[in-house]
Order: sequence, then C-alpha cells, then structure tokens
Amino acid sequence: MDKIAISLGDINGISPEITIKALNSLDIEPENVVIVGSNVVFDYYKTRFGLTLRENFEIIEVPLKYEDITPGKETKEAGEFSFQCLKKATELAKEGEVKAIVTAPLSKNAINMCGYHFSGQTEVLEKYLAHDGQKAEMLFVSPKIKVLLLTRHTSLLNAVKSVKKEILAEKTEKLNFSLSSWFNIKSPEITVCALNPHASEGGLFGEEEEKEIIPALQILKEKGIKVSGPFPSDTLFQKVIEGKIQTDCVVALYHDQGLIPLKLMGFDDLVNATIGLDVLRTSPAHGTAFDIAGKNIANPNSMKSAIKLALGLKL
Amino acid sequence: MDKIAISLGDINGISPEITIKALNSLDIEPENVVIVGSNVVFDYYKTRFGLTLRENFEIIEVPLKYEDITPGKETKEAGEFSFQCLKKATELAKEGEVKAIVTAPLSKNAINMCGYHFSGQTEVLEKYLAHDGQKAEMLFVSPKIKVLLLTRHTSLLNAVKSVKKEILAEKTEKLNFSLSSWFNIKSPEITVCALNPHASEGGLFGEEEEKEIIPALQILKEKGIKVSGPFPSDTLFQKVIEGKIQTDCVVALYHDQGLIPLKLMGFDDLVNATIGLDVLRTSPAHGTAFDIAGKNIANPNSMKSAIKLALGLKL
Repeated sequence: MDKIAISLGDINGISPEITIKALNSLDIEPENVVIVGSNVVFDYYKTRFGLTLRENFEIIEVPLKYEDITPGKETKEAGEFSFQCLKKATELAKEGEVKAIVTAPLSKNAINMCGYHFSGQTEVLEKYLAHDGQKAEMLFVSPKIKVLLLTRHTSLLNAVKSVKKEILAEKTEKLNFSLSSWFNIKSPEITVCALNPHASEGGLFGEEEEKEIIPALQILKEKGIKVSGPFPSDTLFQKVIEGKIQTDCVVALYHDQGLIPLKLMGFDDLVNATIGLDVLRTSPAHGTAFDIAGKNIANPNSMKSAIKLALGLKL
Repeated sequence: MDKIAISLGDINGISPEITIKALNSLDIEPENVVIVGSNVVFDYYKTRFGLTLRENFEIIEVPLKYEDITPGKETKEAGEFSFQCLKKATELAKEGEVKAIVTAPLSKNAINMCGYHFSGQTEVLEKYLAHDGQKAEMLFVSPKIKVLLLTRHTSLLNAVKSVKKEILAEKTEKLNFSLSSWFNIKSPEITVCALNPHASEGGLFGEEEEKEIIPALQILKEKGIKVSGPFPSDTLFQKVIEGKIQTDCVVALYHDQGLIPLKLMGFDDLVNATIGLDVLRTSPAHGTAFDIAGKNIANPNSMKSAIKLALGLKL
C-alpha cells in the first residue's frame, strides 16, 4: 500500500501533541506512515506528559536540540525545524516514496524569521512540487461539505476579476479529476457559487453570472462533468449542510465566501487539502495554537481527519 | 405613546397568519398599533383556521375581495393589495400618525405584475419617504447580533468600489445615530468588517483596509464615535456570537458578507430593519413562504420581533 509522510510542524505549537494523539487513536498500519520530525520531540512529550507515540512508525530525523522545545513561544529554531521537516517531506514525495503529505501546522512568522518568505505551507509545496505550470488549489473537506476556493490570498477586487470562464472551467475540471482520483468519488457532482447577491437576479446587479459562470458550466457540461449553479451564496451552504442540495463539492469564488461559512459551521474535524500537484497534501484546518501549546488539552480531530484523508480512508 | 403601523403584506403568503399569531401572543396595548389591511383577511383566517385576531386593533381598510384570498398563489390581486397597504402605511408615517412601520412580507413578483417596479419594500419606502437626499439602509437585528449592510443589491464589483472612506464614515455615523435613537443604545460600539481576506495582512493583498477603512474609522473616532476594525470577516461573526468581541453592531461591506453568516446562524427571530428615514421600518427577515401558506404552520417569531423592535421594546 502507498505511504504517506507527516511533517511535524511547529514544535512550540500544538502540532506534536495532535500528531501523537491522532496517530495513537487511529486504526492504521504503521508501515503506511513516515514521520518527518525528531525523536527528541517525542521524548519531550513522553517525559513531560506521559504522551507516548505508539511504536513502529518510521521517523526521519531532522536536527533538533531538546532545549529548543519551548511550547507557546514563536522562535527561529522552531521555524527552521518546521521548514526543514516540510521540505524533506516534499523530497520524499518527489522521489515517489510517498503519495501524500500531511502537514501539521507551522508558524508563518517563525519560518519568515529564518528567511523563508512564504505566505503559507501551500505556497511552499507549490514551489517545491509544482511542475509544468501546475497550480496548488485549496480544498476544505469535512464529512458534511467540501469547498474549493477559486482564489485564495488575493484582494477581493482581484478575486472578482478572476471570475473568468476559462479559469473557472479549468479549475473545476481539475477539481473533478481530484475528487475522483484522491477521494474515490465516481462522477462527482460539483456546485458553483454565484458571485453577486441573489446570483444577480438574471443580470440585474452584476454580469459575471451571465458572462462567465454560466458559460463555464456549459463548457464543463459538454465535457461530461456534472456541475450546477450559480447559486446565491447566502443560502447555498445551509442547503448543502441540510441535504437540500446534494453535491460532492462547492466551488467558492473567493476566500471569505468559502471561509465565512466553513468557520461558522465550527467543524472540529475540518481538513485543508491541497490538490493540483502530483501528491495530495492534507492539513488540519487550524493553526499552531501557541496559546494552548504544551498543556495537553489540544483536540486532535482535525489532524486525525487529515491523516485519514491522506491515506484514502473514509472520514 | 407613539403608534406603529403594520402593513399586511401578501395575503397569499404567510403574512396574515404570522401577523395574527404575533399580535395575539405579544403583551402590547392595542392602541399603539394600527393595521393597514382588511377585515376580509381576518374573517378568512377566523373561518378557515379558527385563527382570530384579538380585539381592539384599529384596522385601516384597503379594498379586497374574499375570493381573491388564494393561499400559495402569486397573483396580481394580492400584489395590488400588498402594495396599497404598504403605500398607505407610508402615508400614515408622512402625516406623523405613526413613528414606525412593520411590513409583513410581500412578493416582489406580484407587485411587479401590477406595474410597481421595485426591487423590494425598502426601495418602496425610500421612494415615498426619503427627502433631502436621505438613503434607506438595511440593518439586520437579532438578540445576538446586529449587522448593517454597507451595500445591498449591487454587483460585488460595485460593492468593492463603494468601499470609500467618505461613504463608510457617513453611513456608520448614521448607524451610530440610529442605534441610539431607535434602539436606546447610549454610545454604541460599532465593529467594521475587513474587505479583503485576513484584512489584507497589512496591505499584502488589497489596499482598501489601509486607504479607506482605517481612515474612515479615524474620521469616526475623531467625532467621538466608538468604532473598531477592520476585522477579517471569516472569524468576526463567530467571535461576536460567542461574546469574544463585544459590539452593538457589525458593519458588513457587501451583501453576502453579512447575509452568509446571518442566514447560516439560522435565527428564527431575525428582523430586517430600515434606518436612515424619518421613521423606523422593521420586517421579518424571511419572505412570503407561499409553499407553506394557508397551512397554519408558519412560525411568527420573526414577525413578533419586528413588532417589538418597532415599538421600542427589548428583544
């Protein structure tokens, strides 16, 4: 069976704790997982909290000093370690050693302190893994809903201008491929949000539905892809959650259109997945949580789901 | 004490039913309420469902035939009636007879069939009541959160372009005035959403926070108005609901930024208020619900809250 790599993330946040808790509670074969991290971290958590990682996981060592583990603190040392873990995981992927990477949360500030200027792990993965014009796309996954973001960290003005039929059709086609290849969904049904309020009510306010979104859906339908929309975004998410709209994935056209409802629904097992590269990447959809680090109170549910998803298991 | 008017809305939707149920269940003085509608409707609901409006409410009669009450159907006759009720209510307001109007839901399509081309009741009120450049603004009110929409039914592109310091400062100042005058909030605290994802992270993606929103807040602070922001909209609403951010009102910069979270939170007592005119207008935040009309199963909570708010009572 194919292997996955787990990069250990920022050791001063909750990443090591949720990784140990998640791995210990999942019914998975150790030989399917390789951890890129350090036994120094696992020794620390064992000594300090009696949190012992169950045996037999392969651990690829990244250099770390015991005294550099300082829970709650954002440090250069932790930034360097987290970046090297992530980079090593991308190398394993490139070499074909693993089919997916699970990235425990790291601190963007901490890696920036070390001179690694990325706006997030997705951008690091894109830099080291993308080839031939591949683009990383951000997909959020919970058992109740999947949401792809058409655009991520760009201004809302740029996001609006990016609602073009070619871009929407291309990304939705990639999504369709990823849903079937990574998540075993045969012939996925995809639902696309409207951009304008009330989906512009037939063009009354805004032309993107008529000029861009509907033509994109037409292109996709002609390729045999099951798509529907555009649906007004202020009611769509509720309808999907309640099962009134059956869909395998919602395409949100801009960051907050997808993230406002996802965060409000408060899933504690939400996974942030990166698709569009040769490997699948999954990650808990929360951050390093420095404020509760080293207290043994972190909830590993999102990390558990990230690992299951990477292994191709049902959430 | 000041009086309020209730316009009866579309008689083929749930409007009459929720009006009767709400009025019967509220502990209010009948002399403070005037209903603009028809006894023909109340007779219908009494005969058909045993739903009897409690006595002593003044009813201003708008012509209606018994046979034109056809629950579930969108008709020209009901459109005409609902429009005339609303128009008469605006006249009462203009004459100083009432200080506030509660509008039961009507059908935009039905009034359009009669040649009244408005995109909603707010626009009707604006046409008949606004003077000296007054603009109607849409405020959503629940016991847990109030949300003002900076823009309503306009394209997202236009909404983005409307995020200008002058507009934001002017509308927020009007909001501040309305919160204290209509809702008895002394020295309101107002919270403003960011436009861009993560509030642009200091200008990394999008310039509206730096160039427009922050300067608007500065203008308002100099006038002694308590404002804070801009806060990323994907986490703000959750924080307000959970009490982590204390605020009297959130300013959403575009329709779906406010409506996605409001609808997802599923308040059954949400009120749509119109401020900025000489009278306050309140309305249930739902529509005519033709699908459940005439079944005596409609939930009057939103209408109850709309009436309480118009009377200046605590929700």
